[in-house]
Amino acid sequence: MSDVLQLTRDLIARPSVTPDDAGCQALIAERLRAAGFACEHLRIGEVDNLWATHGDASNGPTLVLLGHTDVVPTGPREAWTSDPFTPEIRDGILYGRGAADMKGSVAAFVVAAERFVAAHPGHAGRLALLLTSDEEGDAIDGVRAVAERFRQRGEQLDWCITGEPSSTARLGDLLRVGRRGSLTATLTVRGVQGHVAYPDKARNPIHQVLPALAELSARQWDEGYESFPPTSLQISNINAGTGASNVIPGDLGTVFNLRYNPHWNADRLIAECEAMLGAHGLDFTIDWHRSGEPFHTPEGPLRSAAREVLARFAGRAPEESTGGGTSDARFIAPLGAQCIEVGPVNASIHQVDENVSIADLEALPDLYLALVERLLVG
Amino acid sequence: MSDVLQLTRDLIARPSVTPDDAGCQALIAERLRAAGFACEHLRIGEVDNLWATHGDASNGPTLVLLGHTDVVPTGPREAWTSDPFTPEIRDGILYGRGAADMKGSVAAFVVAAERFVAAHPGHAGRLALLLTSDEEGDAIDGVRAVAERFRQRGEQLDWCITGEPSSTARLGDLLRVGRRGSLTATLTVRGVQGHVAYPDKARNPIHQVLPALAELSARQWDEGYESFPPTSLQISNINAGTGASNVIPGDLGTVFNLRYNPHWNADRLIAECEAMLGAHGLDFTIDWHRSGEPFHTPEGPLRSAAREVLARFAGRAPEESTGGGTSDARFIAPLGAQCIEVGPVNASIHQVDENVSIADLEALPDLYLALVERLLVG
Repeated sequence: MSDVLQLTRDLIARPSVTPDDAGCQALIAERLRAAGFACEHLRIGEVDNLWATHGDASNGPTLVLLGHTDVVPTGPREAWTSDPFTPEIRDGILYGRGAADMKGSVAAFVVAAERFVAAHPGHAGRLALLLTSDEEGDAIDGVRAVAERFRQRGEQLDWCITGEPSSTARLGDLLRVGRRGSLTATLTVRGVQGHVAYPDKARNPIHQVLPALAELSARQWDEGYESFPPTSLQISNINAGTGASNVIPGDLGTVFNLRYNPHWNADRLIAECEAMLGAHGLDFTIDWHRSGEPFHTPEGPLRSAAREVLARFAGRAPEESTGGGTSDARFIAPLGAQCIEVGPVNASIHQVDENVSIADLEALPDLYLALVERLLVG
Repeated sequence: MSDVLQLTRDLIARPSVTPDDAGCQALIAERLRAAGFACEHLRIGEVDNLWATHGDASNGPTLVLLGHTDVVPTGPREAWTSDPFTPEIRDGILYGRGAADMKGSVAAFVVAAERFVAAHPGHAGRLALLLTSDEEGDAIDGVRAVAERFRQRGEQLDWCITGEPSSTARLGDLLRVGRRGSLTATLTVRGVQGHVAYPDKARNPIHQVLPALAELSARQWDEGYESFPPTSLQISNINAGTGASNVIPGDLGTVFNLRYNPHWNADRLIAECEAMLGAHGLDFTIDWHRSGEPFHTPEGPLRSAAREVLARFAGRAPEESTGGGTSDARFIAPLGAQCIEVGPVNASIHQVDENVSIADLEALPDLYLALVERLLVG
């Protein structure tokens, strides 16, 4: 059994549902220390974070391999063909929670890092692994908090490769070169409660908000930005009413989320939305949650190295994309690092019978090693 | 203590929260039987209904005095100055749940009926009292069900005086000559659930429904009808969302109510609304609840008699109105009866410290008696 397959199985067998690391990082740190890495355990709240480095930041760039050891819950275990925390191979496929998102990538990072420092013990710059056990959850005490510490101590990061499962049909067919920003509004509109028979004595907050929400939801924010899709606003929740059919409610609550490209930042979106709500004469309060500004890695050494390496594995140049949800790269990019995401096929993530093909898994250390060599050796 | 005050106190002391009659109708039937009325107890489901008649429908019109013995709940008793089911007089005001809505009117009906048959034992036509214990609740097994039985047995009703508290500032200042219809829609709009990051793979039912609801809520249905206010649509409930801010919900539920004047009927409103929803391309289901068509009593002997009698009590001609909520007259009007509503001041109904002025209460039997004499004696 290959090294990366064995390590992926060992990690899957640790039921590390967010924020529980379940011993994954200790296992990894033991191996990396043996390979010559300096390991720093950053326990923040209930979250384990591991920062492992090899080399010297003063004589070259720092390349970070970014990943997470936590997994999403399994849902009903009886829905799985085999136990989600007992790795099982069927027909060349490895099954288990985290197989694709992203214990396979983490194992491949470790194997690639070991091989790299064995082959290039005196390499220029610094190779680092950063792992957290809170990527799938609140992501407060994970990479967000670590990045804040890095900022305080002046840690210099140049390039970051996140192992998120980015591939769509075959390994390496997609290179993620950015992510949209995410911004969530919780809006409360106040009216005046009353009886439906006397609408003149009430002010219906549902009627008040409808034109404003219709305008917000219909707006074309932009046409996209380079490889980013257009900015999108989605109303995810709306609630008003007492349950009685004859009572005009006193207030209405709604939640909407914006996924935005680098045409925008959170401050400008907030100003636009609040101006629109005000123009409709609403009596409202609004709370904003900023999940992360967009990031974008323009053409440069990281993107061109990744394009060449991925083309070698996928058989053709990868799609260069900025779609999808958010990832922890949103916390590393603001430190000044260029970020990309490269990982296995994402078809089964967050689902029952999550899996990774063993062929892809066993190619992944070579892929990451090729990337590290291109960036740190040339 | 006057007869009507004593009877009102006896009724208030019976805690007849819908649908419990708590012995009110038995007390009334005992008195009416002694006065020569034929009494029929119609127990339907958990609801008590009393049908008491005097005279002969074959030699003149039937005049119905329509009322209810049930009351709305008290809410927290400690919020009341005195116990809601212990009638108490303070400064010329009688306090207790049902004092105004409508045990005072019911007691005045009884006293007026006794006096009328004593003075006119061989009167033309028929004087009837119809009482229910389910006016404030679902109103299914109350007058709605009784009216259905009347329809089946061919009961002929000509005029109906409902004792609902219609007066606004002084007894007799308002004569209700109609009520709007009420129609309630429960609308479900289906979309396709998804992640806010991938709006192209979902169909947001909130976004879909907003233009349709904005159009429905902004529509001017009419300008009013004689003394009816304009038809009004109010959205009373709207709910969609999983609670998570990043999930586009799969469906949306909303409830709206129409209060409409005789320009419309339920069938035409339903057709209009469904056509509008269909024109917006919605995938929807809708359930309609018809609470009652509008009724309207045009100029004629009932209205002119009431106008004259009320003017005598209020000191000037009453406002003739069709405003407010629904009442049980909606079930009697379709039998072919002309309906009006005349009762005490409604300022305290459904509130804590519900009350009626003793002066008004003691004038009420005279008012009803004058109406009955004008209609059955001339």
